[in-house]
Amino acid sequence: MTDIPDLEAIRQAHRRIAPYIHRTPVMTSRLVDEWAAASVFCKCENLQRAGAFKIRGATNAVMCLDDDALSRGVATHSSGNHGAALSLAAGFRGAPAYIVMPETASKAKLTAVEGYGGRIIHCGSEPTDRQRVLERVLADTGARLVHPFDDYRVIAGQGTTALELLDQVPDLDMILVPVGGGGLISGIALALGHVRPAVRVIGVEPRGVDDAYRSFRAGRIIPVPDGGSIADGLLTTVGARTFDIISRRVDDIVTVEESEIVEAMRFIWTRMKLVVEPSAAVPMAGLLAGKVDASGGRVGVVFSGGNVDLDQLPWR
Amino acid sequence: MTDIPDLEAIRQAHRRIAPYIHRTPVMTSRLVDEWAAASVFCKCENLQRAGAFKIRGATNAVMCLDDDALSRGVATHSSGNHGAALSLAAGFRGAPAYIVMPETASKAKLTAVEGYGGRIIHCGSEPTDRQRVLERVLADTGARLVHPFDDYRVIAGQGTTALELLDQVPDLDMILVPVGGGGLISGIALALGHVRPAVRVIGVEPRGVDDAYRSFRAGRIIPVPDGGSIADGLLTTVGARTFDIISRRVDDIVTVEESEIVEAMRFIWTRMKLVVEPSAAVPMAGLLAGKVDASGGRVGVVFSGGNVDLDQLPWR
Repeated sequence: MTDIPDLEAIRQAHRRIAPYIHRTPVMTSRLVDEWAAASVFCKCENLQRAGAFKIRGATNAVMCLDDDALSRGVATHSSGNHGAALSLAAGFRGAPAYIVMPETASKAKLTAVEGYGGRIIHCGSEPTDRQRVLERVLADTGARLVHPFDDYRVIAGQGTTALELLDQVPDLDMILVPVGGGGLISGIALALGHVRPAVRVIGVEPRGVDDAYRSFRAGRIIPVPDGGSIADGLLTTVGARTFDIISRRVDDIVTVEESEIVEAMRFIWTRMKLVVEPSAAVPMAGLLAGKVDASGGRVGVVFSGGNVDLDQLPWR
Repeated sequence: MTDIPDLEAIRQAHRRIAPYIHRTPVMTSRLVDEWAAASVFCKCENLQRAGAFKIRGATNAVMCLDDDALSRGVATHSSGNHGAALSLAAGFRGAPAYIVMPETASKAKLTAVEGYGGRIIHCGSEPTDRQRVLERVLADTGARLVHPFDDYRVIAGQGTTALELLDQVPDLDMILVPVGGGGLISGIALALGHVRPAVRVIGVEPRGVDDAYRSFRAGRIIPVPDGGSIADGLLTTVGARTFDIISRRVDDIVTVEESEIVEAMRFIWTRMKLVVEPSAAVPMAGLLAGKVDASGGRVGVVFSGGNVDLDQLPWR
């Protein structure tokens, strides 16, 4: 897929991946509604297969390949949810997935990728190591690269989240989406732009890694600062394709503090009884901390994933 | 209600409480099914109002009182989920709820009861203090006692869990239920005995507090041993009414170890992304540890509650 996905491309992605993914439920909470003074609809991608929305994009990318192209497998360098998702997605068609991961990756992440059948190739912890090793893997195996976000097949797959949510809750005023590399928000913004352009699309980003916030304002990509965040799914800089879509289709990007993320995460765990990872709590943090004015509206919030190491909780 | 609830009483309870409670979802997991070699249907009472099935029985008891009887409020001595549930249920009709709680109760429990509008009356930490203070409260206020489990209105209310589950998953072979005071399992056993007597009802209990297991085998109530358990909702001895129903209607009771409870709880959190409290993980522990032979069957599992203190997790 070499063009920006149009509505038909996203619908086609949904038909393609529907047999393999969950139609995740939408959860609500009186208490959230009270605190936010709005009607809040949480799209539970933490209950998605492999524990995150990433399986949507990964599956679409894998299903777009013909048998010949797929025969040598797929490869990526994400050590997080995309690595696990691509491993699972490749397995749907019996193809190998090569996942380049730093030797320093947590045991939980290694176990997840292995559990879904991915083949791990270790690299050093420098970003340049990762890229170098990935290029070698691609050359050696002939595997096809499936980038974690800057790939139109992946973006179209992530956009199916919005089609599903609109089907479940037709009359939204706004949707809040976490922003890392930008695959999820650009897919959602594309889908909504076609189907329901009046819905405001707001990105929420940890202030410590606010590349999307800064880039959105500057009109050009400003790399992620070194601040870091407990939202380990959001540490990457937006890509050329995702930023292009974000800059034209997203209505606003706001930032939240680390303490607000932890508080929102605890709130979701204790009040909604749902395990979400820190990245997934970021939009709720924006809502509860008043960074977004949603009062009186109908607000979609994407709980992007639920993969968290119970021995490394941020409030320990 | 002075008779053992019949089917109509449980159906009536359901009609009475339906406007106030959630029809909780049933969740499934491929991984659970693989591990248990069965089709497992988890009734998510952790997503119930006030975070546990207890609101069913408490609401039914409150709704059974006429305005005059209710005008002086309701009272109980449960410091756990029943205390919070009774506070919320009384509030549905604008009545006061007096909750006798030991001074040593955790801040989380005090906050929950207060949050639902309950009036806390402190007592010492001895079981006799609790009873003495409760009797004084009943005498002073004229409030009606709503016992946490040994009350037919409460038992009928808890039995609605089974009616709902059967409506959601009609063809169950077996249901696994945690056993504390026995209100939930006796209500469920009564409901199923009428509607679908072929469904086996199995209680699961922590071995450290296996009064129901021992009593079931002995044919008379044997008080809970001092062993203790992290399943803090299951520390009580079965009551006269609940044991009478259990001994006639329940098919079996099995026990699980503390380590099996912690493992099941972690499994549910990490794999199903659901926050359940230790007591709620007990039936899954029985299943995953092979204490119940469910192979090939369709098994209901009640996730009884999700109220847990995130600062006191059992794997810290």
